[in-house]
Amino acid sequence: MCGIFGVFGHREAAKLAYFGLYALQHRGQESAGIAVSNGREIREHKGMGLVAEVFDEETLVQLKGHIAVGHVRYSTTGASALKNAQPFCVTHSKHTYGIAHNGNLTNSRELRERLEAQGSIFQTTIDSEIILHLLAKVASRGIEEALTIVMETIEGAYSCLLLTEDKLIAFRDPHGFRPLCLGILNGGYVVASETCALDLIQAQYLRDIRPGEIVIIGKDGLQSIQAIPPSPRQARCIFEFIYFARPDSNVFGENVYLIRRSLGERLAEEARFDCDFVMPFPDSGNYAAVGYARASGLPFEMGVIRNHYVGRTFIQPSQSMRDFSVRVKLNPVKEIIRGQRVLVVDDSIVRGTTSRTRVRAIREAGASKIYMVISCPPIRFPCYFGIDFPSRGELIAARHQVEEIQRYLDLDGLHYLSLEGMLAACRAEDGSFCTACFTGQYPIEIRTDLSKNILERHP
Amino acid sequence: MCGIFGVFGHREAAKLAYFGLYALQHRGQESAGIAVSNGREIREHKGMGLVAEVFDEETLVQLKGHIAVGHVRYSTTGASALKNAQPFCVTHSKHTYGIAHNGNLTNSRELRERLEAQGSIFQTTIDSEIILHLLAKVASRGIEEALTIVMETIEGAYSCLLLTEDKLIAFRDPHGFRPLCLGILNGGYVVASETCALDLIQAQYLRDIRPGEIVIIGKDGLQSIQAIPPSPRQARCIFEFIYFARPDSNVFGENVYLIRRSLGERLAEEARFDCDFVMPFPDSGNYAAVGYARASGLPFEMGVIRNHYVGRTFIQPSQSMRDFSVRVKLNPVKEIIRGQRVLVVDDSIVRGTTSRTRVRAIREAGASKIYMVISCPPIRFPCYFGIDFPSRGELIAARHQVEEIQRYLDLDGLHYLSLEGMLAACRAEDGSFCTACFTGQYPIEIRTDLSKNILERHP
Amino acid sequence: MCGIFGVFGHREAAKLAYFGLYALQHRGQESAGIAVSNGREIREHKGMGLVAEVFDEETLVQLKGHIAVGHVRYSTTGASALKNAQPFCVTHSKHTYGIAHNGNLTNSRELRERLEAQGSIFQTTIDSEIILHLLAKVASRGIEEALTIVMETIEGAYSCLLLTEDKLIAFRDPHGFRPLCLGILNGGYVVASETCALDLIQAQYLRDIRPGEIVIIGKDGLQSIQAIPPSPRQARCIFEFIYFARPDSNVFGENVYLIRRSLGERLAEEARFDCDFVMPFPDSGNYAAVGYARASGLPFEMGVIRNHYVGRTFIQPSQSMRDFSVRVKLNPVKEIIRGQRVLVVDDSIVRGTTSRTRVRAIREAGASKIYMVISCPPIRFPCYFGIDFPSRGELIAARHQVEEIQRYLDLDGLHYLSLEGMLAACRAEDGSFCTACFTGQYPIEIRTDLSKNILERHP
Amino acid sequence: MCGIFGVFGHREAAKLAYFGLYALQHRGQESAGIAVSNGREIREHKGMGLVAEVFDEETLVQLKGHIAVGHVRYSTTGASALKNAQPFCVTHSKHTYGIAHNGNLTNSRELRERLEAQGSIFQTTIDSEIILHLLAKVASRGIEEALTIVMETIEGAYSCLLLTEDKLIAFRDPHGFRPLCLGILNGGYVVASETCALDLIQAQYLRDIRPGEIVIIGKDGLQSIQAIPPSPRQARCIFEFIYFARPDSNVFGENVYLIRRSLGERLAEEARFDCDFVMPFPDSGNYAAVGYARASGLPFEMGVIRNHYVGRTFIQPSQSMRDFSVRVKLNPVKEIIRGQRVLVVDDSIVRGTTSRTRVRAIREAGASKIYMVISCPPIRFPCYFGIDFPSRGELIAARHQVEEIQRYLDLDGLHYLSLEGMLAACRAEDGSFCTACFTGQYPIEIRTDLSKNILERHP
Repeated sequence: MCGIFGVFGHREAAKLAYFGLYALQHRGQESAGIAVSNGREIREHKGMGLVAEVFDEETLVQLKGHIAVGHVRYSTTGASALKNAQPFCVTHSKHTYGIAHNGNLTNSRELRERLEAQGSIFQTTIDSEIILHLLAKVASRGIEEALTIVMETIEGAYSCLLLTEDKLIAFRDPHGFRPLCLGILNGGYVVASETCALDLIQAQYLRDIRPGEIVIIGKDGLQSIQAIPPSPRQARCIFEFIYFARPDSNVFGENVYLIRRSLGERLAEEARFDCDFVMPFPDSGNYAAVGYARASGLPFEMGVIRNHYVGRTFIQPSQSMRDFSVRVKLNPVKEIIRGQRVLVVDDSIVRGTTSRTRVRAIREAGASKIYMVISCPPIRFPCYFGIDFPSRGELIAARHQVEEIQRYLDLDGLHYLSLEGMLAACRAEDGSFCTACFTGQYPIEIRTDLSKNILERHP
Repeated sequence: MCGIFGVFGHREAAKLAYFGLYALQHRGQESAGIAVSNGREIREHKGMGLVAEVFDEETLVQLKGHIAVGHVRYSTTGASALKNAQPFCVTHSKHTYGIAHNGNLTNSRELRERLEAQGSIFQTTIDSEIILHLLAKVASRGIEEALTIVMETIEGAYSCLLLTEDKLIAFRDPHGFRPLCLGILNGGYVVASETCALDLIQAQYLRDIRPGEIVIIGKDGLQSIQAIPPSPRQARCIFEFIYFARPDSNVFGENVYLIRRSLGERLAEEARFDCDFVMPFPDSGNYAAVGYARASGLPFEMGVIRNHYVGRTFIQPSQSMRDFSVRVKLNPVKEIIRGQRVLVVDDSIVRGTTSRTRVRAIREAGASKIYMVISCPPIRFPCYFGIDFPSRGELIAARHQVEEIQRYLDLDGLHYLSLEGMLAACRAEDGSFCTACFTGQYPIEIRTDLSKNILERHP
Repeated sequence: MCGIFGVFGHREAAKLAYFGLYALQHRGQESAGIAVSNGREIREHKGMGLVAEVFDEETLVQLKGHIAVGHVRYSTTGASALKNAQPFCVTHSKHTYGIAHNGNLTNSRELRERLEAQGSIFQTTIDSEIILHLLAKVASRGIEEALTIVMETIEGAYSCLLLTEDKLIAFRDPHGFRPLCLGILNGGYVVASETCALDLIQAQYLRDIRPGEIVIIGKDGLQSIQAIPPSPRQARCIFEFIYFARPDSNVFGENVYLIRRSLGERLAEEARFDCDFVMPFPDSGNYAAVGYARASGLPFEMGVIRNHYVGRTFIQPSQSMRDFSVRVKLNPVKEIIRGQRVLVVDDSIVRGTTSRTRVRAIREAGASKIYMVISCPPIRFPCYFGIDFPSRGELIAARHQVEEIQRYLDLDGLHYLSLEGMLAACRAEDGSFCTACFTGQYPIEIRTDLSKNILERHP
Repeated sequence: MCGIFGVFGHREAAKLAYFGLYALQHRGQESAGIAVSNGREIREHKGMGLVAEVFDEETLVQLKGHIAVGHVRYSTTGASALKNAQPFCVTHSKHTYGIAHNGNLTNSRELRERLEAQGSIFQTTIDSEIILHLLAKVASRGIEEALTIVMETIEGAYSCLLLTEDKLIAFRDPHGFRPLCLGILNGGYVVASETCALDLIQAQYLRDIRPGEIVIIGKDGLQSIQAIPPSPRQARCIFEFIYFARPDSNVFGENVYLIRRSLGERLAEEARFDCDFVMPFPDSGNYAAVGYARASGLPFEMGVIRNHYVGRTFIQPSQSMRDFSVRVKLNPVKEIIRGQRVLVVDDSIVRGTTSRTRVRAIREAGASKIYMVISCPPIRFPCYFGIDFPSRGELIAARHQVEEIQRYLDLDGLHYLSLEGMLAACRAEDGSFCTACFTGQYPIEIRTDLSKNILERHP
């Protein structure tokens, strides 16, 4: 997953990009970067780590210009070297281009092999570089025609921003997998993965970038081109609602907090357990838990305390510290839990290992019964469009029935929200969402040998 | 405010101290330090910033030993140079001493002037150095007698840890201002400001260090000395319950979460407003809000979203970004708030400026009415015992009536918990707590020219 | 100017490369880099600054492998960013290549424009990248045929090393502008710009790489290919003898110290002045001064002291410190110079500004007469083959007669060695050297719009 | 050994101190520091490494003020932590003092023990801190009387600078062991270990600070106090001439270059060998070699080349690189040495190990005979006054006769200058110099258990 942010027409474009990325930090904590243009020349700064670690006042001051593109990247693979950080910038025939990409191409391997056979030299293993090499081949035709050719060549999920010396360009794949919204700020334009980035800089939301659309923003204003027609099979990622987007964002036209509270209310309709109170695993289960408590009439408690004051620690615990990685973030309040029947709400179970240690911590705090409800169906299939699930073999629900999972987690009861319940809460009954991680029905044909890190194997 | 942590008798003492400080990070974010002894030699590492920034695996590995003392420091003054970080270590007549101190001495100025006149050279402006200079004068009498003499000389609030080559020593002032608790771990001992530090490393809580007590832990076990009798006027800091301690800690024998929930329930008894739902300012108002919702039967919502994913930012916002410092942390969810009558719960109001921008952000999100309840009485007096309140002139309640504050904050209603309500919720009716910040009745006579940073004026 | 070094067949190849570059540091102080292969995988480390600043034990330890290529770079232009540091490595169609280059291509502009029109994307502005892009186009033909095609395409001066996963390859332009020598060490091979690098690691000198030759060193030994015939107009750079190479090196088959002493002896034959002693400007004039003293019978003194103990300073002097940049390095010994007639020996005068302040410093130390002799003819033309002279307009001898220069430098006498004298001392009467900087007769046709930094303008 | 530098009355005092230390870098390469006062407040910056590494433009800009004191430190012991770097600054009773010290106290152990017994806490193991603790005890009497009392208490070698908020104070021990000179610059004053520091900043030499003198420089000018009478046994360090001072300095009123050339001329009178040319070990033997060549009529060559272009390397050589530590700095020119009878001139032999590898390198370059002359007598006794010789056991001449040393070094001939020859060349026949390292006759009684690092053991 990644977050992208672009701005055109603001004296402090880099600073706005900084805060835009800051608001989108939840979409990627591995690297951050900003490229900026003053109309003639592009400068960039990138680094490993959080936005607030990568940039300081001094680096921002040097990024002078009124157009900027920023990117935060998430990756769990070895490929996470600095050179793969984005925006990715190149100079070709006296022009500079900077690209920021959210999503995953599904035909990147064939494209790269074909380009290398023609003599292209690649610097990175990221999809975005393929887009730029394709662009360089046809750049002489003008950016509009060139980008249209590129969009006809690439396949998969892409919400992209392209920076040139004098333009900010946004384009989105015809299936509309990943969100991308457009806003205005004092006569300038802002493009961002989520509306929470607009809120922070006090920009006004205008509309979403449309599937298959290219938006070119220059000194003469905004130009929209429907480069390729929207796919008849729209495939918005429903997992943005379940887990990924920030609760205070609107994505795909809906407020995430309200959707999550509805998911909790649906859960309360589908499953009741005999318990003393409802509590979330913070913060992933917070809003569904509020919905569950409201619909069920059960008291709401915050039975595990999240340690907010600390940074991330990379220190390995001493051997004697069992379940440390959970406790360092979440401490159960024994005085609240001891002797109680507890209903825990969470948004999803992926591998099951984290949930298991969390449940154990609650049991050790003295709970007499522990029930759990999950605000989506079991995740059984990998995602090829940008969500970094583990391979199928590691997804606990791909190999185990719900009863087995309940036993593995040592729960007294477990309920997953039904597919229908989820679709209803998400107002997604019209089939315009991708739910492949639950159903295995992919909106694009996927060859089975493909993996997210296919390019890694080249060198 | 500060947090202190000590361990005796564990092979990885520095690592335990690291995690102990990590759990105590909320007590001080400015600097962190650990001193460790292997029985013969003391090493230390200190730095500015969070525990996770100051230490890495490499620095911890070099801190070999089975005895350790750690410290996190909070300060808003210019005095926050690295040289004032603790533990503060000196070598004197072939012995090394490291001290970590939570609290404030009230006669530090006289003591320092007297010592300098005799030729003592000070390296820092911290109280802890005074304690060590006094100790050096009488060190030849043995640590037990020497420390007793020192405790008879110094006045004010002090919960301290002293590390020598072969001992861990804890001592606490006779009024018992600051908490300090003792635990055991696999036959070794742990001393910490709060029990949440014991929880993280899975140590068992034993008891509190008693007012006026010296506890000396060495290879022959633990020795307790009542160096000076406990003061008949006990003065435990009630603000540890209201705001300072972590909700999952027990301090002064009570669980902080439960106390805070009781404060919210008391508020619901004292003040009702005609509103649609209750919401906290996260996270300071969380537990009182849960209590208020439970006692009042009103729905509980999380109407402002705290941005958890980000580090601290030091970048100044662009001029156009009004109320930025609030919005960067807390984003109101417009879809929840718009058109609603909102009751906001918070723990305290100090200067009033932060509360004011928060209230404004909620009003801009579209609230029709905003009421606020505060889980303690108005703070009217400075603290000389270690809580870093601003000077009296800056405390909004020192100069203004509640009605004026309500008007300043632009609220439709405001209620502070009564002193009696607070004492009852805290089970503090027996007068054993210091409530001077609310009442002005100080348990120790304070000369009016004294300020926390008096030593700063020396050089 | 640059220095290059390669090694094949030593367990600590990176460490040898480090010391080889250390010995070649005089050929480039701006950046340093080493790429190493363990037979399967190439790693590199590069940085701005001196070899000893760029590498430490830790970085060297991580460069594991038995084949290595290193490079030190000299540049006075703005183009000196880290990304232009060498060796320059790319991965193409699953193979990695690292190149290190000494010299300058004279048709780089046309080549780059042609490649970009075909869609190639460049990362840097260095000639070496052009060589790799050309190679990528024909790489499928095998390294031997591919490199031959590349050498037929590029023009100008190049002594190059190419590292692949399992080979070390050296190749040199058909004119033989820059030196490149081959040595052996315990059964392995070493290639270096100068023999002083072989001396330091105790390798044995074998022979020079021949003009137009490709030498491929792999696990089956050394293979020599005369890829293109040596040019009938050999053009070895005579300035390597005058100034550039280290005195303890042999280049082009001759010892540099002996050549320089001969230059001094020739000077003594050509010009005698009535003076008390001979002194060099250290260290550039040292060996010619020894030769002059020996041939003339005059006493030799070290009248200005070079400050050896210091690093480089980047601190600007206070305004009152006149001629500071000279004095910080060279301090005249007043007690030696006062009242004396001094003959100063130096190797060359480029802009004249440095010489002028040096002469002034000697005059202020009290010399009664100052004469100067220079061990080469006046430099009047720029170099397009890798020596970083300033543009013609800045070369003092391009615009001024010797008498004018003498007056500008405030000398009582000035003599430049004659072209014939220089050729005789260098044993270069056979016309196999490039002397274009003195004569303007370039061995390759140069289009007048060309400049060394042509690629910088791309931008 | 150390170098000290002070300035009073210049707007850019810190910058002058920087360049003064830069010129004195040969007196200490381990740490560097500058303390500066603007008349009210003292700031300092210190670090490990060379002056040019410790300071940059930014750190210097922050050291605002018109009075400055600087120090470079040399130490081969483990005691070289940053905290022992100088100037050493303390604040006492609202005043700040910064001290810089060249030399060694001989009664430091007794003084420290006495002070600690009275409760003083030491931060470092350097002599300078003892001076400040003594000063703190009597500071209320005024600086003049207080310093006089301190000088009556301490024993040994000390040339010191003391910085207060508004004064620069210089004082020197009554034996005059270490040099210290006074200069003027644009109406301000400069104090430095050697005159080369005055030359670099273009200050005029005025006179030496006298043995036993205190010079106090303030806004009302310079005040001289003969605090204690000069010792009848003056003990200027003759090794400053032989080895330590820079050749372009005057110390103790004589020019070092001329003295060293005289030492070489004396050597030529005392010892002749049948050889082809004279060469120095650069740069320690340079000036004596010039003198020897001049007096003997033999040709002068620079047969080993010093690698000037490199920084220091801390990389360990590969095992196969024999005598690496010599070759990395000095490369013999085989073409000069092969088949020749060589006379090598050097200034001293301490342990003999370095000389031995150097001689071996010359032999491997093909010399037929190697003779060596040394410009001082054999060093047989340790120095307690600031020269960092090894302990007696490691001094080769303390345990071996000249013939044995010749055999150990594998020489065909070896001659040390006689004591009389040295005294004559140094114009030191009047007995006013300390020659204890040659004779064992110490000018101050030394207790045999004393060592330079005595304080280290405290621990």
